[in-house]
Amino acid sequence: MKTGKKTQLDLDAGLSDIQRARDVLKKYIQQTPLVYNQWLSETYDCQVYLKLENMHPIGSFKIRGATYKISTLSAEEKKLGVITASAGNHAQGVAWGSKKLNVSALIIMPRHAPLVKVANTKALGAEVQLHGDCYDDAYDTAKAMAKETGRIFIPAFEDKNIIAGQGTIGLELAEQADKIDFVIGSVGGGGLMAGVSAAIQALQPQVKIVACQALGSPSMIESIKLKKAIRLPSTETFADGIAVAQASEGIRKILSERVDQWIEIDEDSIAESVLTLLEKAKILVEGAGALPLAALNQTRNQIKGKKVVLIISGGNIDVNVLSRIIDLGLVRTGRRLRINVLIPDRPGSLSRLTDLIGKQEANILQAIHDRNEPFTKLDQTEVALTLETRGPEHSASIIKVLKNHVLRLELGR
Amino acid sequence: MKTGKKTQLDLDAGLSDIQRARDVLKKYIQQTPLVYNQWLSETYDCQVYLKLENMHPIGSFKIRGATYKISTLSAEEKKLGVITASAGNHAQGVAWGSKKLNVSALIIMPRHAPLVKVANTKALGAEVQLHGDCYDDAYDTAKAMAKETGRIFIPAFEDKNIIAGQGTIGLELAEQADKIDFVIGSVGGGGLMAGVSAAIQALQPQVKIVACQALGSPSMIESIKLKKAIRLPSTETFADGIAVAQASEGIRKILSERVDQWIEIDEDSIAESVLTLLEKAKILVEGAGALPLAALNQTRNQIKGKKVVLIISGGNIDVNVLSRIIDLGLVRTGRRLRINVLIPDRPGSLSRLTDLIGKQEANILQAIHDRNEPFTKLDQTEVALTLETRGPEHSASIIKVLKNHVLRLELGR
Repeated sequence: MKTGKKTQLDLDAGLSDIQRARDVLKKYIQQTPLVYNQWLSETYDCQVYLKLENMHPIGSFKIRGATYKISTLSAEEKKLGVITASAGNHAQGVAWGSKKLNVSALIIMPRHAPLVKVANTKALGAEVQLHGDCYDDAYDTAKAMAKETGRIFIPAFEDKNIIAGQGTIGLELAEQADKIDFVIGSVGGGGLMAGVSAAIQALQPQVKIVACQALGSPSMIESIKLKKAIRLPSTETFADGIAVAQASEGIRKILSERVDQWIEIDEDSIAESVLTLLEKAKILVEGAGALPLAALNQTRNQIKGKKVVLIISGGNIDVNVLSRIIDLGLVRTGRRLRINVLIPDRPGSLSRLTDLIGKQEANILQAIHDRNEPFTKLDQTEVALTLETRGPEHSASIIKVLKNHVLRLELGR
Repeated sequence: MKTGKKTQLDLDAGLSDIQRARDVLKKYIQQTPLVYNQWLSETYDCQVYLKLENMHPIGSFKIRGATYKISTLSAEEKKLGVITASAGNHAQGVAWGSKKLNVSALIIMPRHAPLVKVANTKALGAEVQLHGDCYDDAYDTAKAMAKETGRIFIPAFEDKNIIAGQGTIGLELAEQADKIDFVIGSVGGGGLMAGVSAAIQALQPQVKIVACQALGSPSMIESIKLKKAIRLPSTETFADGIAVAQASEGIRKILSERVDQWIEIDEDSIAESVLTLLEKAKILVEGAGALPLAALNQTRNQIKGKKVVLIISGGNIDVNVLSRIIDLGLVRTGRRLRINVLIPDRPGSLSRLTDLIGKQEANILQAIHDRNEPFTKLDQTEVALTLETRGPEHSASIIKVLKNHVLRLELGR
């Protein structure tokens, strides 16, 4: 208990710590925009504001904590250089901050880390070494190498100055909007929400904090329930920015006092929120940054008529992944229809089919007509169609019409 | 000549007109963010700022001119209601402004207008009627119906108050950044750049104006060359927001005095810029809004070391189109590799092939293995592969390795 208390006090950044962090960070980074979103506000019958942390040079809020932490090192420590382990945004934060402050940085990334993130971290001037099969292996290697080399280890979240740096978001929010009712953000390690809650509740005590985690990676939510930091055997979410297996006991204690509501978000809802933010807010958001929007569905009643800030924590999503999210999202929202139809294998059959679709005002995105498909009768042929439609009702009416004109119609995946 | 002068004076909004527009618009819309972009700044060796007009409720700057214009109508005119013709952003601007000001709006859209844009305009509360096969047909219908019904016609660009509304962007820029060297924006009808140039050059006379048009729709550029407004027989660009065939003589005169440089942008460069803004600025931009970025390549020498503002005019791009742009962009930048390989039709052949690709650290996005493909020999089979790679060098080395292990390798489309 005593140790716990001490850990918490060591970690918990207060308003003055965060104000000090801001004075430093002002020299290096621009304040991020807070943008009102009309569509979301009308949809959820409240005032929704988006804090665009994806607009930072490295595309995520991690630039704040990492840069501030490095700035607090002594001249001697700076000479020794820094080291960290990360598969993503923290790596880029440490690389960016080190470059600005002229400090040598060594980043240990797991061997399977996304190639784009390795390339981006190298492009920021850091030395990158690949070690181990997962984040935890990389972490162990980095800790060992810190001892060997004397480099200063920069934690991703369990550090008072890291938390103070992330907390500067809260100071900006308090200046950018008055009378905020809810601040909603996602939790991986929890550094972001520990810092933001400290700042915003000091300045606007009425603010309620809503924290979200992915259903497939609920390390902090489980720790809060059990009143003890736990380690998940594995994390399963495409929101890689918050896939943290080992919760921090110190941060658990901070968040257990400050968070008013915890929400778990499933993968489909995260993907759908990425697509909604793209279409309705015109911003690119990574999985971790999309959770706060998904949380609105589960807080509909509480937030009605209130002023709600969603922290859009980052935008580092691979465009290949985005492309898949768009495809799946269009299918899910009924704007992309996949069907397999069986038609007679006679000249003109395909033409009649496409003509029928054209008359329904649907756009054919893909048609695979495979006469050699081995499991159909000799006088039949299957066509796999991907259509663009206006929405679920339009899709349903197309299916109805086509059913009357083909031998068989099945929904595709 | 005299008529021309008069037209120009009638159209040309001055600083005080634009300030008046801003006083009105302040009640309805938020100032849009001006965001520094580090990646673009380093890439072009200058300071690049993005003016995010895609963040408006309707996703484009058209909200400014339309809302201000409607606000200037007399109480009597407002009672009569408004009418306009548009296939896209202006329609949404008029619908939005009319709703705010409690004015009845009728929008004439061409029958082929994107379904999404029709739906969005209706969702804003306007009545939408579909007439004619192209914009010009819809325009003629709207003008005729204005006479019949007494509704006030709201022009898309050729109107002093519309231009004053768009000009408010220039006032915001002057407040958000000092000592701007270049403002780069795209031109369809030219209302945007007529207004912006008036405001910014009145407040910061040193600013040079760079205007871009799509190579497939250069109505204003051709008009400037010929010193006379022309009409293109057709427009061919996916940047639908600036596909304007008929140039305005009045706006031609304004822009001929104010624009320092005209730049034409090809379709591939527009698509590539959409992808760059998505990945490096985390924003969704439509074709018309991406031209200013593409213009940087053609002004590299002039802008070196300068402060450059790109007006990101809008973000209303269909996600189906975006999905195609991502796919094409990844192929073009060598990060997605499409190849067709011929392998022996023996058990284990496909497994050996995929194993080889795995060892090259490429990710298989799609593999179509079609044993029934009718044009190959009986003992051979073709596999169409789509691979995710780290870039052109990685792609080249994969091709080199595979060539030594397959019967034939062809690059796919």
